[in-house]
Amino acid sequence: MKSQLPRKTVYRLSLYSRCLERTEAKTISSETLAQLAGVKPTQLRKDLAYCGHAGKRGLGYDVVLLRALLAETLGTSRLQPVVLVGTGHLGLALLRYREGFDKEGFEIAAAFDIKPMKTPPKGITVPIFPMTQIAHFVADRGVRMAILCVPALAAQDVCNLLVTCGIQAILNFAPIILQTPPQVAVNDVNLAIELENLSYFIQ
Amino acid sequence: MKSQLPRKTVYRLSLYSRCLERTEAKTISSETLAQLAGVKPTQLRKDLAYCGHAGKRGLGYDVVLLRALLAETLGTSRLQPVVLVGTGHLGLALLRYREGFDKEGFEIAAAFDIKPMKTPPKGITVPIFPMTQIAHFVADRGVRMAILCVPALAAQDVCNLLVTCGIQAILNFAPIILQTPPQVAVNDVNLAIELENLSYFIQ
Repeated sequence: MKSQLPRKTVYRLSLYSRCLERTEAKTISSETLAQLAGVKPTQLRKDLAYCGHAGKRGLGYDVVLLRALLAETLGTSRLQPVVLVGTGHLGLALLRYREGFDKEGFEIAAAFDIKPMKTPPKGITVPIFPMTQIAHFVADRGVRMAILCVPALAAQDVCNLLVTCGIQAILNFAPIILQTPPQVAVNDVNLAIELENLSYFIQ
Repeated sequence: MKSQLPRKTVYRLSLYSRCLERTEAKTISSETLAQLAGVKPTQLRKDLAYCGHAGKRGLGYDVVLLRALLAETLGTSRLQPVVLVGTGHLGLALLRYREGFDKEGFEIAAAFDIKPMKTPPKGITVPIFPMTQIAHFVADRGVRMAILCVPALAAQDVCNLLVTCGIQAILNFAPIILQTPPQVAVNDVNLAIELENLSYFIQ
């Protein structure tokens, strides 16, 4: 597991990459790019130095070169296959958002559920398989990332299964802190908890 | 803006609350609750002391009382109306997940878009209004929370508008760090960036 860069730096590198996608200029100053991303120019320069970019004072960044460097650093220069586990309300919403993921370089290769529906709901084009097939699929396709959308009660067991199958990174939507071996990375996204967290701050 | 409790503590309090919802016991030991949430018992006891709970050694927690205390602390003892801004792919996916939010105590009262569709897509029951109506709606309904799903280029402008309307907390899905006055709380959720972040760690 590569972990030289701090999590927050990796997060901001993703942001810069998205800002560059939206610019039509050939070069961009650190001030402009920093403003687009909503960070301080000193922060931007520090972050880019982290990923080996030696900017030349006064010349600005070459947009194409910087994008390539960021993609290389972030490992998004090729399409990453991802499996989604759990096709309840949220899982289906994410499957419907498939083209949003595609655009960002992630292919939801298949979805899995303990009890997959016989006919997939309208608007879902990703195949949905029973959980019993996940080990074979993950090994066969060399999948290393999973999106976990199962209920909290099942989350740890399914997580253990994913780790056994060789999954190395999990985007976890279940409201539970997963226990994983150190080589497995977990990012938590819980929309209800994020809202609840915000509601605390507006009391 | 209340901010006595650290963000991560508030996050874990939400987790405990969800774990308690799933238990059928009348009392629960700190060890059991900690295990359900995936944290250490010492962490749990520290967190609950933060929100004023004085546990009695050896007796465990009364589930109903602890749930009420957590709801009171988190401000989720009543339904919070929320507006959603931006009805692109992700915005629509979230609107379809409406009942998931409802169950957690958040009502998506209305959605807004610069160019709302004439006929709402199938499965969407939340009304979608043009942006010009948001100031009136937010004031009229006393809404203080917003979910922001507009493209990155528009996000800061829309955020400024929301703040002017009196929105105090924003769940931001746009891949940009929003600049807001100190009394406005922002939580960022960016699925593509979370995936990109994970993909860095599996290289």
